[in-house]
Amino acid sequence: MRQSPHPWPKIVVLGAGFGGLFACRALGHKDVDVLLVDRLNYHTFTPLLYQVATCALDPGEVAYPIRSIFRGVPNIQVVMGEVTRIDTGARLVEIRLDDILRQEPYDYLILATGSVAEYFGHLDFRQQAFEMQSLSDAVSLRNHILRLFERAAYTQDPAQRAALTTLVVVGGGPTGLETAGALHELYNHVLQEEFSASPPLHARVYLVELQPYVLKPYPQALRQAALEQLRSLGVEVLLSNPVVDISADHIRLQDGAVIPTRTVVWAAGVSASPLTGGLDAPRSPDGRLHVLPTLQVVGHERLYAVGDLAYLEDPRGQPYPMLIPVANQQGRLAAGNILRHIGGQPGAPFRYHDRGMMATIGRSRAVAWIYNRLPLSGYCAWLAWLGLHLVTLLGFRNQLVVLVNWMWNYFTYDRSVRIILDQERRSPPPARQE
Amino acid sequence: MRQSPHPWPKIVVLGAGFGGLFACRALGHKDVDVLLVDRLNYHTFTPLLYQVATCALDPGEVAYPIRSIFRGVPNIQVVMGEVTRIDTGARLVEIRLDDILRQEPYDYLILATGSVAEYFGHLDFRQQAFEMQSLSDAVSLRNHILRLFERAAYTQDPAQRAALTTLVVVGGGPTGLETAGALHELYNHVLQEEFSASPPLHARVYLVELQPYVLKPYPQALRQAALEQLRSLGVEVLLSNPVVDISADHIRLQDGAVIPTRTVVWAAGVSASPLTGGLDAPRSPDGRLHVLPTLQVVGHERLYAVGDLAYLEDPRGQPYPMLIPVANQQGRLAAGNILRHIGGQPGAPFRYHDRGMMATIGRSRAVAWIYNRLPLSGYCAWLAWLGLHLVTLLGFRNQLVVLVNWMWNYFTYDRSVRIILDQERRSPPPARQE
Repeated sequence: MRQSPHPWPKIVVLGAGFGGLFACRALGHKDVDVLLVDRLNYHTFTPLLYQVATCALDPGEVAYPIRSIFRGVPNIQVVMGEVTRIDTGARLVEIRLDDILRQEPYDYLILATGSVAEYFGHLDFRQQAFEMQSLSDAVSLRNHILRLFERAAYTQDPAQRAALTTLVVVGGGPTGLETAGALHELYNHVLQEEFSASPPLHARVYLVELQPYVLKPYPQALRQAALEQLRSLGVEVLLSNPVVDISADHIRLQDGAVIPTRTVVWAAGVSASPLTGGLDAPRSPDGRLHVLPTLQVVGHERLYAVGDLAYLEDPRGQPYPMLIPVANQQGRLAAGNILRHIGGQPGAPFRYHDRGMMATIGRSRAVAWIYNRLPLSGYCAWLAWLGLHLVTLLGFRNQLVVLVNWMWNYFTYDRSVRIILDQERRSPPPARQE
Repeated sequence: MRQSPHPWPKIVVLGAGFGGLFACRALGHKDVDVLLVDRLNYHTFTPLLYQVATCALDPGEVAYPIRSIFRGVPNIQVVMGEVTRIDTGARLVEIRLDDILRQEPYDYLILATGSVAEYFGHLDFRQQAFEMQSLSDAVSLRNHILRLFERAAYTQDPAQRAALTTLVVVGGGPTGLETAGALHELYNHVLQEEFSASPPLHARVYLVELQPYVLKPYPQALRQAALEQLRSLGVEVLLSNPVVDISADHIRLQDGAVIPTRTVVWAAGVSASPLTGGLDAPRSPDGRLHVLPTLQVVGHERLYAVGDLAYLEDPRGQPYPMLIPVANQQGRLAAGNILRHIGGQPGAPFRYHDRGMMATIGRSRAVAWIYNRLPLSGYCAWLAWLGLHLVTLLGFRNQLVVLVNWMWNYFTYDRSVRIILDQERRSPPPARQE
């Protein structure tokens, strides 16, 4: 710990997602003391979570220990814990790990706690649906799907088998498309081949979307291209059809259709993380904190919010989207504005450098909208997606290992990470008969 | 499923460890129908479990889906399930997956269910101790240790910190040595560096052994070499000192010493798996089934037992050790003897081709006893260990990925797989204040 007669300003950063990480990177080796708090000990590379859920990557390949990221940066401390209270008057946050509480005073606070799945009032859906928000979610979904296939191999009843091997993804955004596409490949190229059941297991993947199109923010031509690629892969896409009920063994849509299934993946939307619930600050309807263009939370000079948690409108009056590049750039700007505040300078306003969007649908299938001008579709878009994600992945070892796995998967259609790793608590062994 | 007017003999193999796997490999593409049953959907490469526990490898790198191993072998079916009953009179086994039961008739049965940790009457120890028997054990231990270090960073109390960062491994066999050595490296090369606590975290690793030496089956010179390498690494070895009590916050030894610790790894011994408890067959005191030299269970012509589950004495009257090469060779022989029995020929007796033993203690530290003649110690033994394990790992992808990780770990002392992946069940999010 640094010993200094004149202590540096103390900045607490809550959340080690993309926003928090980029803020800390911009604060490293500066004359400030930074404390980065996250409830996990690793940063999750969320764009590849669906690859963990579909057995293409190991959990460790999309997670990176936070302490490692800031090893060798002496002014950044990392602590694992949940935030239990934010006191903006006394300028302190309270964090908790198991039964240990700890209070941390701050001069500046950056809120970067991200988003959670949004159920739009249907909280009962949450009991039945799988999410794709965290690494635990992805591993749970992987375990669940593999186990259902093992169960399907036990039974001859066609209806039971159909329910066990039918999967429904709700939501036509990038996460929904990626998950549906990758699950279809897992089912029909890998698992089906190995389950030599008689009659053969026939797996179906549905994508259900409320709107009459997928990929809402994309131009019409790319929406259509994505839809065609999904359908050419074999995914059954149901549009303009909201979910009205999810239970343990089926899902019901507004048009009355009932799909028997044990697996519903909820990718229909996100809202701001509820962690900052105790704050007295104006919010958008989806719970995001209104921030000034300098990213200061409205009414709180020393409080900054970035990424999915922050609500800010662009010059055309549209809110900035909840996307990783926005979080990255806001994290960097919040860090810069704090340093400017310390130096007595005015803060700079947020300007989004938008390099476009991309979504992948499966092997060799993707759409991209480069700089929101150049539309790409199919193989080129997929190569662009692959390159971008490999470059962005943290750490050289991870890049190398992920590259090996991707090449392996691409040429062999193999999914080697197909293990059901249930972490249930051990129970004592049955007594042995002597 | 094969349709044939004259059905082939049906062989059920229980357990997809090394014994069961090698039996199935020897039965592949022969005129028999094989059903391989395991309670997991993957084979575990147990010699590298300690590397998962110490964050050097990802779980998927030491586990291989059983269905993949036998893809393309049409006469071998794989099913996931627990054995609930063996009826040697009716010649059928009953297996279970969740709530589904299934009965499988057999003409021959190979029992290869392996071993479990043995507590020598101290069943209460099991509540407190971690094991190194399964992949779940290894991941649980990894999560536990990483979490304790995070907790230690919260507290300034020297006694609490010491208890949180002290680890005790019980048992001076290869598993105990490997675990103690690797944990010491994890603690003192990786974690300590990243926890920039004040005062610095000081981690201690103890190895506790009942006997006055480690590595009982090795010659005295190698025992001594292993002990010296362990101690030179920094592991505190306590010999001739049985454990008398394990509780949540300490371990007590026979000489009265009390070590405050939250982490006890039990590697003191194994006994036969209790899965075959319902069988009417003679057993050794540690629960192993007595088999004839042909590996037929005594009193059961069509029942074979192999590996850790089988008890057989070598020509000098010593029981064959519970080691992977024994299981491999017995699995192959049981398969061969079944094919001989079908062909009306007498079974061949087991002869162990003993190529020696090796154990690793850490980076560049190991002992090996090649062909039980040539003793190796230090760097040469470690290279031999590395080569052997890389060659033996199943699957080209795994070999490649493990090689990348090993090289990375070796040159950087990095442990990238350091994520606390708790698989606790999701709970609904707290209500948001609007």
